[in-house]
Amino acid sequence: MHPIQVGDIAGVGCFTDSCRSCEECKDGDENLCSGTGGMQGTYGAACAEAKQPGGVTQGGYSGDIVVDESYVIKVPENMHVAAAAPLLCAGITCYSPFISHGIKAGQNLGVVGLGGLGHMAVKIGAAMGCNVTVITRDESKRELALSFGAKNVVISTDKVQMDAAAKSLHFIYNSIAFAHDIHPYLNLLKSNGTIIMVGGVPQGSMPAGSFALIPRNLRIAGSLIGGIRQTQEMIDFCAKHNIVCSIEMIDATPEAVEIAWKRTIASDVKFRFVIDTKATLPKLA
Amino acid sequence: MHPIQVGDIAGVGCFTDSCRSCEECKDGDENLCSGTGGMQGTYGAACAEAKQPGGVTQGGYSGDIVVDESYVIKVPENMHVAAAAPLLCAGITCYSPFISHGIKAGQNLGVVGLGGLGHMAVKIGAAMGCNVTVITRDESKRELALSFGAKNVVISTDKVQMDAAAKSLHFIYNSIAFAHDIHPYLNLLKSNGTIIMVGGVPQGSMPAGSFALIPRNLRIAGSLIGGIRQTQEMIDFCAKHNIVCSIEMIDATPEAVEIAWKRTIASDVKFRFVIDTKATLPKLA
Repeated sequence: MHPIQVGDIAGVGCFTDSCRSCEECKDGDENLCSGTGGMQGTYGAACAEAKQPGGVTQGGYSGDIVVDESYVIKVPENMHVAAAAPLLCAGITCYSPFISHGIKAGQNLGVVGLGGLGHMAVKIGAAMGCNVTVITRDESKRELALSFGAKNVVISTDKVQMDAAAKSLHFIYNSIAFAHDIHPYLNLLKSNGTIIMVGGVPQGSMPAGSFALIPRNLRIAGSLIGGIRQTQEMIDFCAKHNIVCSIEMIDATPEAVEIAWKRTIASDVKFRFVIDTKATLPKLA
Repeated sequence: MHPIQVGDIAGVGCFTDSCRSCEECKDGDENLCSGTGGMQGTYGAACAEAKQPGGVTQGGYSGDIVVDESYVIKVPENMHVAAAAPLLCAGITCYSPFISHGIKAGQNLGVVGLGGLGHMAVKIGAAMGCNVTVITRDESKRELALSFGAKNVVISTDKVQMDAAAKSLHFIYNSIAFAHDIHPYLNLLKSNGTIIMVGGVPQGSMPAGSFALIPRNLRIAGSLIGGIRQTQEMIDFCAKHNIVCSIEMIDATPEAVEIAWKRTIASDVKFRFVIDTKATLPKLA
């Protein structure tokens, strides 16, 4: 059934299993599994001690991983493996809401924040035929944004630019992951527009009342990665359109990871660090 | 062009004109008109002194009204005129989001609050083939809810009932118009579910952060009445399904209006007051 064969390159996304029997799993939304315990996270999730000493899944720090074939993604041939890896999280986190919200070619898509998620949203949105506008506080990201396929860049701290872009966007992909006021972004939406929230912000960011949405039929949507079938569809789409993640490769050493972590916190990564476990981790027997 | 003819009964909804040239007007979303001044409100809106002494539109307190044929709705023959009148506000405020969000027969629709809007949402949702669940704090509304076509009633203050209904609804129509916490209602949505907000609440009601939406791909949508073409479609749908608003008719006297107003504030109206201007207002020359 599954298209993956011995010898193929298998990708593993943010989860390695789910209950397989709840409504969501049956619908192909394993990422939203409502079975006991939900999806089995690839990293930071409790697991059997026999699977992983310590009882916590290690994700990208693993040298090897055992996953049922139903939960792996076939990485298309000729795709740069390291640059494909983050697609399995950042790529699907863009692709999935674009599909489920019916984003279409010719529509105006805003992308707020040009980080690991945002830069993928630009690439995928542009490949879908959208007119992509990047909204960023950082003028220095203009050239990069345009190089990824954006047609416009709006500096969020510049009121004149924000006013000029008012009511121009069908959708906004909001990748900001810290507390912020989304009203200035809601103002960029056309009537009936949707802002897609993917940055997990426990407090802040949401409007205080429904009047922020009602007068122009606006919508706020959350979105969490995507299901296995859709992730395969995403990576095939990316392969077709020559899209990979923009990455910096590092060694699997504590020192390299420490530096990468500090640079990530300082927003100094273009755009995902990938740990080269194959080259630098000791092999299992 | 317009189907209305001399002798027909013409209904006037919440607005009587709009700019006719903005993107929204061209799309048939005159209710969202983004032209200068937006839609011309039927009541409480500034207007020329020549149109209405005092310069404020008087809506349902008017004995006569002059409206361009492009902004009137043909009330189907044989429809009870008084009971049809509130459809032009409450009816379209349900019908429009049901259509734009693609609510389908067989889906589970929750209706929070069984007032003027909520009872119409039950009738229209049931006519669309949805399994309607009314969520109310008021046990005394159970029989009425069922009589309007609801299949289930959940008492919102009863934790056992709310827990039993968790993750069961594809859509929720939230008609509460005062500050309240929507988290208990979000919990009733299935994954990928949408809560439609129609009760204008300036403060309160919205989640504080995006984590309320992301883990289950939930959506919050605002919705404001509907356009002219869609309002005609709504009233034709209602005529086909024998749906009217449940009303109490009152005379156009200050005393009757005063009583009706106090009863409305006390939530004591089943479910819309209609002022019988034809019978009780003095005729214009």
